[in-house]
Amino acid sequence: MRTRAAVALEAGKPLEIMEVELDDPKAGEVLVEIKATGLCHTDEFTRSGADPEGLFPCILGHEGAGVVVKVGEGVTTLKPGDHVIPLYTPECRECPSCLSGKTNLCTAIRNTQGQGLMPDGTTRFHMLDGTPIYHYMGCSTFANHTVLPEIALAKVREDAPFDKICYIGCGVTTGIGAVINTAGVEIGSTAAVFGLGGIGLNVIQGLRMAGCDMIIGVDLNDDKAEMAKKFGMTHFVNPSKVENTVQEIVNLTKRGADQIGGVDYSFDATGNVKVMRDALECSHRGWGVSVIIGVAPAGAEISTRPFQLVTGRVWKGTAFGGAKGRTDVPKFVEWYMDGKIEIDSMITHKLKLEEINHGFDLMHEGKSIRAVVEF
Amino acid sequence: MRTRAAVALEAGKPLEIMEVELDDPKAGEVLVEIKATGLCHTDEFTRSGADPEGLFPCILGHEGAGVVVKVGEGVTTLKPGDHVIPLYTPECRECPSCLSGKTNLCTAIRNTQGQGLMPDGTTRFHMLDGTPIYHYMGCSTFANHTVLPEIALAKVREDAPFDKICYIGCGVTTGIGAVINTAGVEIGSTAAVFGLGGIGLNVIQGLRMAGCDMIIGVDLNDDKAEMAKKFGMTHFVNPSKVENTVQEIVNLTKRGADQIGGVDYSFDATGNVKVMRDALECSHRGWGVSVIIGVAPAGAEISTRPFQLVTGRVWKGTAFGGAKGRTDVPKFVEWYMDGKIEIDSMITHKLKLEEINHGFDLMHEGKSIRAVVEF
Ligand SMILES: [Zn+2]
Ligand SMILES: [Zn+2]
Ligand SMILES: [Zn+2]
Ligand SMILES: [Zn+2]
Repeated sequence: MRTRAAVALEAGKPLEIMEVELDDPKAGEVLVEIKATGLCHTDEFTRSGADPEGLFPCILGHEGAGVVVKVGEGVTTLKPGDHVIPLYTPECRECPSCLSGKTNLCTAIRNTQGQGLMPDGTTRFHMLDGTPIYHYMGCSTFANHTVLPEIALAKVREDAPFDKICYIGCGVTTGIGAVINTAGVEIGSTAAVFGLGGIGLNVIQGLRMAGCDMIIGVDLNDDKAEMAKKFGMTHFVNPSKVENTVQEIVNLTKRGADQIGGVDYSFDATGNVKVMRDALECSHRGWGVSVIIGVAPAGAEISTRPFQLVTGRVWKGTAFGGAKGRTDVPKFVEWYMDGKIEIDSMITHKLKLEEINHGFDLMHEGKSIRAVVEF
Repeated sequence: MRTRAAVALEAGKPLEIMEVELDDPKAGEVLVEIKATGLCHTDEFTRSGADPEGLFPCILGHEGAGVVVKVGEGVTTLKPGDHVIPLYTPECRECPSCLSGKTNLCTAIRNTQGQGLMPDGTTRFHMLDGTPIYHYMGCSTFANHTVLPEIALAKVREDAPFDKICYIGCGVTTGIGAVINTAGVEIGSTAAVFGLGGIGLNVIQGLRMAGCDMIIGVDLNDDKAEMAKKFGMTHFVNPSKVENTVQEIVNLTKRGADQIGGVDYSFDATGNVKVMRDALECSHRGWGVSVIIGVAPAGAEISTRPFQLVTGRVWKGTAFGGAKGRTDVPKFVEWYMDGKIEIDSMITHKLKLEEINHGFDLMHEGKSIRAVVEF
C-alpha cells in the first residue's frame, strides 16, 4: 500500500512529506494506522545528525497511538480495530531479559531494531523507486501507517484519545516510570528533578503520585517553575542564582533530626553529564538513589569521586522508565483516563503532518512541552 | 595509665614503639585491652601520607579484638571481661542514619571521629610530655590499651580466638558484607571480583556462601589464583594476558539462552578507578550491580558513559560491607566459629608489636594476606 510520511532523507535536513510504499505485515507483524504522534527530543537527536547511530533515509517518530488495520500470520493478541501504542522497548515475555523479571530491556529483536530493520532483517517502507527506508526505534510513527512486531504494541482501551495517550508511548512513561519502577520512591521521600521539560514534569507528577514530601525542581529557566508547581513541585532552585546547587539542595533537605541533608532520590532529565554528577552528589549519604534519564551527547562521560558511592549513594539509569510496555502502558492509559495522570496541559501544540518541521522549531525555541502531529 | 603503642609521629615515617599516657574512659566510653590487631591497607594509606585527611601524631590500627577492662559512666551494654571487636563504623541505634534502616553509616560521632577525637572533642592518648595523640578511625588498635565509645564496640563470644577474629573488624566483614548486605547476591548468580588480596578473597568466600554459580577472579598476578580457588573462585582472568578484560568476562558468562553475557554482580577490591570502570562495564545489561569496595587515591575519579547505567547497570559502593557493627559482627564471629567463614589461612603472619613496621613491608611485597600483631 501507499501511505504518507515525513521522511528524514539525510542527517541535519528538514523532514520531507511524501508518499511511501508500505509492505504488508509479515508473520508476527501488525499494520497500524497512526492517529497521532508526539515529537520527542530523541527524534530530533537523530534528525539533527547528533546520533552516531542514525541511519538514513528513515521515518522517525516513536511516540504514537493508532488502530490496528491488519495482522500478519501467527499474530494472536491483536486484531483489526484494536487501539494500540507502539513500543520502542518491546516486551516478548520469552527472552532471558523478559524472563529475568529484573529488567524491561527485552532483547528479542534488539539487533535488527538497532539496524533500522524489522526482525526478518528487511524494511517494510520503501521510496516509490524501491529504495528501502529504515525504521526508527522499531516504531516510525511519523507515517500515517506503519508496521510493527506484535511484541512492540500495547493494546489500550478504545475510549482514550489518541492525541493525548500517544505521549504515554515515551515521555509520560519514561518520567513516571523512572519514579515508580526504577527508583521505587516511597511515601514521605524527598526528591530533586534536574530539568523541567516534558520528562522532568512527568517525573514530578510521578513523585507526587508516589507521595513525596519535598519535590525540588532545578532549572536554569525561572519560567519553567510555574508549570512545574502545577505538577507538584514544592521547591525551585535556579543554578544560575545560587552559589552551589548541590549545597543548596542539601540545605533545603535538612529536616528534623537529620542535619546531614540530601534528597532521597534525584533524577537527571537534562542529558548533561555535569548535571548528572550534581544529581548524584545532592542525594543523601547512606541511601540516596540517583537516576539518569536524559540522553547524553555521543562520547560524553559521567564522573565522580568513588567516595560518593562508598558512602552509600547509588547511581542508576532508566530506559522507558523501566516499564514493561505491553503490561504497564495499558495501566498508564487507565490512570490517565481515571485522572491520576495529567497529560492534556502538556500537549501544548497540535500540528498537521505538513507542519512537522515547525514542531522541531518549537522544541528548539523551548516554546512547546509536547507538540503532537495528528493525522 | 600507661600503655605501649606503635605511634605514627609523622606522615611517611616508620611507626615508633613507645609508652604513652591513656586517660580513663569518660562517660559512654570503654577501656579495652587489645589482644590482637590486623594491619590493613587503610592504615598504610594514612601512615604513608597518601591520605589527605591523615592527622599526626596518631595511633593507627582499626582491626582489633580485645577485652573490656573498665567502663565509663552510663555504659550499660558492656562490663569488664567482655570480649569485644572495635568498630570504625559505630552503631548507635539512635541517629537518623541508624534509624533509617537503609544504611550502616551511623552519624552519631562522625564529626569528632573524622578529626581523630573522642566524642567530647579531646583525645585519651597523650605523649609522656602531655602532647595529645590523635585517635584513628575511632579505634587506634596499635596500642595495647585503647579507649572507644560504647557504640563502637561489638560484644562477641568469649571462646573465639583474638588473633583470628580481629580480622572480622575490617577485612572479613568488608568483603563478605559487600556480597550479603550491599549487593544482596542470590543463589545461582554470576560474579566477578577484581583484586585477589585480602578483601577480594573475602568477597569470594562471601559469594560462595551466597551460592554463586560462577565466581570469576581478576588479578594481574597469576600467583593469586591458587589461594582464590581455595576460597571458591571458579574462573580466573589475568588482564595482562587477554585483549580485553571486560569482553573476556562477558564471553565467559554467556550461558544457555542468554547470549548477551555479563556478570550479575561485580566487585572492585583494587582501589584503581580504571578497574572500577571495568567492573561496572562487565556487569550484565539490564540488571548488573557493581560494588566499589577499594579506596581510591585522593582526587581520583570514576567515569563511564551514562549509557552503561541507562541500559540497566547499577553502580554502588560499600563501607564496612554495609554491616551494622554491633548487630552483624557478633554474627560473623559465630559463623567463623561454626566453620562457615574461613579466616585461619588468611592470617599469614604473626608479629610482635616491635615488628609492626616489618608487617607493612610484607604488605608492600605482596607476601602477606593478613599480618596480625599479638600483644
Ligand atoms: Zn522519546
Ligand atoms: Zn523479551
Ligand atoms: Zn581496614
Ligand atoms: Zn547511629
